[in-house]
Amino acid sequence: MARLVMKFGGTSVADIDRIRNVARHVKREVDAGHDVAVVVSAMSGKTNELVAWVKDASPHYDQREYDAVVASGEQVTSGLLAIALQQIGVPARSWQGWQLPIQTSDVHGSARILGIDGDAIVRRFQDKREVAVIAGFQGVHGATGRISTLGRGGSDTSAVAIAAAINAERCDIYTDVDGVYTTDPRVVPQAQRLDKIAYEEMLELASLGAKVMQVRSVELGMLHNVRIFVRSSFDKPEDIDPKAEPPGTLICGEEEIVEQQTVTGIAFSKDEAQISIRNVQDKPGIAAAIFGPLADNNINVDMIVQNVSADGQTTDLTFTVPAGDYERAVQVLKTSKDTIGYQRFDGATDVAKVSVIGIGMRSHAGVAAQAFKALAEKGINIRAITTSEIKFSVLIDAASTELAVRTLHSLYDLDK
Amino acid sequence: MARLVMKFGGTSVADIDRIRNVARHVKREVDAGHDVAVVVSAMSGKTNELVAWVKDASPHYDQREYDAVVASGEQVTSGLLAIALQQIGVPARSWQGWQLPIQTSDVHGSARILGIDGDAIVRRFQDKREVAVIAGFQGVHGATGRISTLGRGGSDTSAVAIAAAINAERCDIYTDVDGVYTTDPRVVPQAQRLDKIAYEEMLELASLGAKVMQVRSVELGMLHNVRIFVRSSFDKPEDIDPKAEPPGTLICGEEEIVEQQTVTGIAFSKDEAQISIRNVQDKPGIAAAIFGPLADNNINVDMIVQNVSADGQTTDLTFTVPAGDYERAVQVLKTSKDTIGYQRFDGATDVAKVSVIGIGMRSHAGVAAQAFKALAEKGINIRAITTSEIKFSVLIDAASTELAVRTLHSLYDLDK
Repeated sequence: MARLVMKFGGTSVADIDRIRNVARHVKREVDAGHDVAVVVSAMSGKTNELVAWVKDASPHYDQREYDAVVASGEQVTSGLLAIALQQIGVPARSWQGWQLPIQTSDVHGSARILGIDGDAIVRRFQDKREVAVIAGFQGVHGATGRISTLGRGGSDTSAVAIAAAINAERCDIYTDVDGVYTTDPRVVPQAQRLDKIAYEEMLELASLGAKVMQVRSVELGMLHNVRIFVRSSFDKPEDIDPKAEPPGTLICGEEEIVEQQTVTGIAFSKDEAQISIRNVQDKPGIAAAIFGPLADNNINVDMIVQNVSADGQTTDLTFTVPAGDYERAVQVLKTSKDTIGYQRFDGATDVAKVSVIGIGMRSHAGVAAQAFKALAEKGINIRAITTSEIKFSVLIDAASTELAVRTLHSLYDLDK
Repeated sequence: MARLVMKFGGTSVADIDRIRNVARHVKREVDAGHDVAVVVSAMSGKTNELVAWVKDASPHYDQREYDAVVASGEQVTSGLLAIALQQIGVPARSWQGWQLPIQTSDVHGSARILGIDGDAIVRRFQDKREVAVIAGFQGVHGATGRISTLGRGGSDTSAVAIAAAINAERCDIYTDVDGVYTTDPRVVPQAQRLDKIAYEEMLELASLGAKVMQVRSVELGMLHNVRIFVRSSFDKPEDIDPKAEPPGTLICGEEEIVEQQTVTGIAFSKDEAQISIRNVQDKPGIAAAIFGPLADNNINVDMIVQNVSADGQTTDLTFTVPAGDYERAVQVLKTSKDTIGYQRFDGATDVAKVSVIGIGMRSHAGVAAQAFKALAEKGINIRAITTSEIKFSVLIDAASTELAVRTLHSLYDLDK
């Protein structure tokens, strides 16, 4: 029997009717011959309610108690889904993180999975074809025996880690989109769903703001070579043809992608702010003097552009921060003016970052050059550029975002 | 340090404000020098919500999954109270049933506590005076590692069992009444709060419909000699004088009650129905023929009165059942007419049972006789009588209940 992990988020289990719908999805896979482990989130809204209570009880709450409270959400859904499965004749039982166990670090609130014992699940697959319904997002810290949670996107991470632990053929992530697209279809109606995308590409897309999968779970998938399939939770189980290839996007190793495109997708983010520091001394330690204080204030710096200085003495340095952190960053820079030693700085919050991603870039020269030319022809000014092996990003005026994305999408033949 | 268990029900932890209030109650006892274990129920309404979801998911739900779902309610409250305690400077941590562990049988939904390991709690009392906040109502079945719940009144049972496990000086049950009364104050305004009541008396009162404590937790208290103190959860922690004796009722061994009253309290129940079977054969096996089929149908028979037959041939037999089971009982009797062999039967649902309870009755003759005389003087007809060592009950017309209770309350000097 091929083993399959299925993961359903909060919207998919928001009430008993939807839990019943999930149960039918699981039954469909069991009937098709799969041994199934299902990972569930809390009913949508429940986690927020629990978090609000914790914060009301104390603004300086104990993360271990936070975890005990918040993990209860997934506990409820796992039990309810097991019952709904049994009700339609599918043997099932719920598993809490501490029951398997899913061992984690003791960084409560954002614990890392250290190991999962999948033996009990596999044994029960073999003994009675019992579906394992696993509470996502949670684990246990072995030494203290306390409940831990994995933080944002935790249930995706649970699902991928369990798929690795039981050596599953695939980890299906049911979500509110039916796959990963070449870009945001709201901006480019011709955006195409990708059949396959490499882990590395998905990581770039995810970290650049495509909200389908958390970076962490994709990283884990890449590490353990877990094939992750993103598909729609809105499809009715009855409408799915068990023999046909289901619609969705497979996140996999690049060796599995036979016909590689040069460019896979275009990502963009408008929540950027640009800061340019003028006439800083071009000397060792200057970058540390600027970015150290920002890091100390938990401000994430993204693009950094420093040109080779023309006179060998002073240079300009440009970087971006999340738009929400702009004011704080400005304050930090003002406070550190003497230690940095700069003349002045200017900034802008009406900027956007557009990124072109594709593993094929590695072997194709001039991919970025084409973009610069195309953008110039549309009169779009490029404020800054950064590149990596499989992507490049340009910082432009926010007003030009849609035009830039459409231009690049069409340039690289993604409209099909 | 004297050890203390404090138990708070669902109303006391219904929202974060009330949880904060509970935290202040706990702090009060910690400040007074106690090492405290707190047992909490789910926030009021939560258990019902969870149970409704389970029943919606399947009318034939798996009790083990029911337990996993429903136990989450207490998990939430335990974490929130631990946080609220830390917030006011009291070291605290939450404990789930499986963490201590609280070992139970595998009768999910109404499991029995088999043993509690209180060592971890006591060690942390000694090391850092840390308050243990324990999720009530739940435990774990050792062999399977699955979450269990204790059924109705489970949190009281948890509290008493934990008090026994850590050898606590007292188990304080905070509830919506400020103690146990000589009778229902809504019927007899002169009803007095008892300072002390013996376990045996409380068991009779509880099983007769006084709703303060579940029978099960009183039985457990009696078995392990845990002193249970029933007190009000409405008192503000700030208003309680730490030096004064708090108002409430201590449920304890009779040796601790120095001045025993003959009669401790008057209980009554209007949810009774009477059935009298006329002219049954007075022969061995007749009682089994009647009560066997009723038991098979889960109908609880309470009072049973069978007179010595006058002619040695036939007799009348009277018994009571809960009013809600009356129609079913009638059906069962009709179906079993041939096996029982009776002429006819009659019944009434407008009857009430009034009971007089007191350990002192053991050594005082004529206590019941006084009652019969007093009731007769008020023109109250007694339909049936049963007696035990520490109580007697009379079955009367429901319309006379209040008059009978007042008459007896005054007769035995309970008005004070």
